Amino acid sequence: MKPSLPQGTRDFSAEVVRKRNYIFNTIRTVFELYGFQPLETPAMENIETLMGKYGEEGDKLIFRVLDSGNSFQKDFFVGLFKYVLEFRKQTADANPNVSYFDEFDFLNKLIDHPTVIKELAKQLQENKDLNKKYLPSFKNDVSSKALRYDLTIPFARFVAMNHGQLAMPFKRYQMQPVWRADRPQKGRYREFYQCDADVVGSNALLNEVELANIYTTVFEKLGIDVEIRINSRKILTALAEVCGGADQMMNITIAIDKLDKIGIEKVKQELSQRGLNQSQVSIIEKYLSINGSNEEKLSSLQQLIGDNENGNKGLEELKYVLHYCQLSTANRQLSIDFTLARGLNYYTGIIFEVKANNVQMGSIGGGGRYDDLTGLFGVPNVPGVGISFGVDRIYDVMEELNLFPETLQTGTKVLFFNLGVEESRKAYELMQQLRSKGISAELFHEQSKFDKQFKYADKKSIAYAVMVGSKELAEKNCNVKNLQSGEQQTLSWNELLNFSF
Amino acid sequence: MKPSLPQGTRDFSAEVVRKRNYIFNTIRTVFELYGFQPLETPAMENIETLMGKYGEEGDKLIFRVLDSGNSFQKDFFVGLFKYVLEFRKQTADANPNVSYFDEFDFLNKLIDHPTVIKELAKQLQENKDLNKKYLPSFKNDVSSKALRYDLTIPFARFVAMNHGQLAMPFKRYQMQPVWRADRPQKGRYREFYQCDADVVGSNALLNEVELANIYTTVFEKLGIDVEIRINSRKILTALAEVCGGADQMMNITIAIDKLDKIGIEKVKQELSQRGLNQSQVSIIEKYLSINGSNEEKLSSLQQLIGDNENGNKGLEELKYVLHYCQLSTANRQLSIDFTLARGLNYYTGIIFEVKANNVQMGSIGGGGRYDDLTGLFGVPNVPGVGISFGVDRIYDVMEELNLFPETLQTGTKVLFFNLGVEESRKAYELMQQLRSKGISAELFHEQSKFDKQFKYADKKSIAYAVMVGSKELAEKNCNVKNLQSGEQQTLSWNELLNFSF
Repeated sequence: MKPSLPQGTRDFSAEVVRKRNYIFNTIRTVFELYGFQPLETPAMENIETLMGKYGEEGDKLIFRVLDSGNSFQKDFFVGLFKYVLEFRKQTADANPNVSYFDEFDFLNKLIDHPTVIKELAKQLQENKDLNKKYLPSFKNDVSSKALRYDLTIPFARFVAMNHGQLAMPFKRYQMQPVWRADRPQKGRYREFYQCDADVVGSNALLNEVELANIYTTVFEKLGIDVEIRINSRKILTALAEVCGGADQMMNITIAIDKLDKIGIEKVKQELSQRGLNQSQVSIIEKYLSINGSNEEKLSSLQQLIGDNENGNKGLEELKYVLHYCQLSTANRQLSIDFTLARGLNYYTGIIFEVKANNVQMGSIGGGGRYDDLTGLFGVPNVPGVGISFGVDRIYDVMEELNLFPETLQTGTKVLFFNLGVEESRKAYELMQQLRSKGISAELFHEQSKFDKQFKYADKKSIAYAVMVGSKELAEKNCNVKNLQSGEQQTLSWNELLNFSF
Repeated sequence: MKPSLPQGTRDFSAEVVRKRNYIFNTIRTVFELYGFQPLETPAMENIETLMGKYGEEGDKLIFRVLDSGNSFQKDFFVGLFKYVLEFRKQTADANPNVSYFDEFDFLNKLIDHPTVIKELAKQLQENKDLNKKYLPSFKNDVSSKALRYDLTIPFARFVAMNHGQLAMPFKRYQMQPVWRADRPQKGRYREFYQCDADVVGSNALLNEVELANIYTTVFEKLGIDVEIRINSRKILTALAEVCGGADQMMNITIAIDKLDKIGIEKVKQELSQRGLNQSQVSIIEKYLSINGSNEEKLSSLQQLIGDNENGNKGLEELKYVLHYCQLSTANRQLSIDFTLARGLNYYTGIIFEVKANNVQMGSIGGGGRYDDLTGLFGVPNVPGVGISFGVDRIYDVMEELNLFPETLQTGTKVLFFNLGVEESRKAYELMQQLRSKGISAELFHEQSKFDKQFKYADKKSIAYAVMVGSKELAEKNCNVKNLQSGEQQTLSWNELLNFSF
């Protein structure tokens, strides 16, 4: 059997693990500096926790987990057979003349119409009443669990389960893999990490300021030059109101969200197709063409929206965040962008999106404010705001711009050569003493030719070789070779232990 | 909807995450010190990679993952209906008198015999020929993936896929969650971490020495007093040969493995039940009663096994490991235990098991040598040896013995109180300066009563409160309160930035 990996998944070798950990550790350090606390949730959630939270398309991408054994299927089949029989009976009763459901060979005919079986199976699975009648033990038997699709819903579930015990506002960060049954393609995987920070239980705009500063601090530490685009959903609401299409809010948002990809002309076409009239489209076009410095943009927008209440609230939000960010050093990256919409529709206030400069890449971070995170789980009135880091894309950006520190690949530092039984015993002693000083070291596993041991050191990028042969054993010293420069020196055992590797 | 967690899974709050990370980081540091490199594999493996590797019982505990959508089921139903029809036809042809498969109401009758449907479904699913005929697209449609059950098989799969590129001997460590559909109970979870180190591509006993030293070093660092029990499977083979029951090797191993749990009398009973005669049982009893110091045990065993070849090889292995471990400081924990068997049957040489002293707890680590890791995946002759740390149990031991350092809970250090618009703006500036010095700090999210802000600090165990009120704003200073001692002092802003929190 030739082994392989499931589509869209990856092994991470040592070099990649170290680089990824460098990103994770950098983000973690900043999250903690800002008072966020770690949380980890299980890979599996109950299916009801996840379903219906990501839209119809999202639901289809959720990986369901079967309970142990295959009993579910067997139970399901029995239910399905019963249901098919009953269905036939009812249909036959209602339409005695429909020969398709003829008593004798209906099953034979059914087989020629697999879509009918599929449809019945679907009804049986999705209709609660049918479910109850034919599959009394179905719920717990089939796939009661699924792999988490993001970190937000598990977080909401956690907050809803524990909100009495949490210090509010509750600030948590979470860095774990998520799974999506998406079609794999370049840069899109079925298992990938998310890296989120959220504050819930507070309406204060100070939280948005904090999150913006987290973005600037993290990317500064990583050495990535970024632009943090910022807008407010309230301004998009105002735009819809101002052009007399408040009910068109979603249509406007969806169309604007595509601006980057399809350009202004196609956005205008789409707006028309979605039922907006000429004058509305032209107001939106005017809105989308606002440019200049942050201050110029704010004043252009003020002119466009006049005294619209939502618009002015949105402007206040933006001004507050910009003002506060100016108090800290890292505010240059913040850029108002009224064309920013963010597809997901649960945002209600400030929204963010981060792009790396000097490299072709989609957004490497995003987030925003939402009004009610845990309402779905029976705990209303928990507003919050959160951001996310796109670790896979950040990794790609750093690779492309060569931003990973060279010191990151801290594998084995010293290889002791194995040059005989007595020799290697001494080498082992010396090695253990080096290790106790924190220097990572290995003794080659068996006595071999120099060549073979050098090759091993080379393949593992080990920096130094230490050789204790019979001569060195007698003279109580060793040869230390710098494998990069080729420089070699003889050190006493004592000197070796104090050598600065 | 009241949210809940899937059975046997856990959320890890900040405090627990930090404690667990302390364990992971300690183990990781030692692994790296010994030249092991990190590897991460995907949560999902192809179902063929996992099935058949863990015995019949293990296979049942593997969590299968459904592919997206429910199409699989629908396709399966169609196949099943077809198969049922054909089955009926064949049976009717063969037994024209069996009324059970009467043409007319056979389906109705079938429903009253759900086990028949279940059996047919099972056949259809498990029989490759049926599978091909009725479910041409089944393999890829149902559940082609499963959650990893341990870290060893994914490692073997990785080595088999990449063995040409790896520096041999290949030393990797891996710390990731695994999933088992086991019945949850105290201390047993459906999602838990494993922490493994393996060396493959080497027969050298030096590797066993290294792994024994990793155990002692890690547990020394964690402050856990342990006994590392060691034995060799070759000695168990010798025992079987010496008592004339070489073919009884597995029976002997299985019975001995239970000694800790059921005691010597029951082990003897079991040996008899498994077909060993009186004199064989008495030799095994003599073997199991060997005690004393490591040296005394070695010499007692030598007497028992005489010149048995496997036995002498096993003794050599043990002596080698003990000798080498004496070269480093941490050899006191190593204890020969001839009663150690390790249930899993792929071990062929040295085996380990670690127990914590002074606490009631099963083994917190174990491992051993195996002959052929990757043969199952088409790459023969890759011997290796590995150990595993039981992180959940180590956590419990450390909790019980109160071994976690107090400094571990490094949440927010400083809370700046929010005492007004102008005041909090200044507080924000000061906070950002503290953060840039690496001190984790927060500004309370909104202006509130002192009481509320103190409560928040208390709930988050924050060490210091810094207060900038209107008076302090005018005087350009602040009050710093140590929230544990209650001590309070007034510092200039400059002094604050140099205060040692």
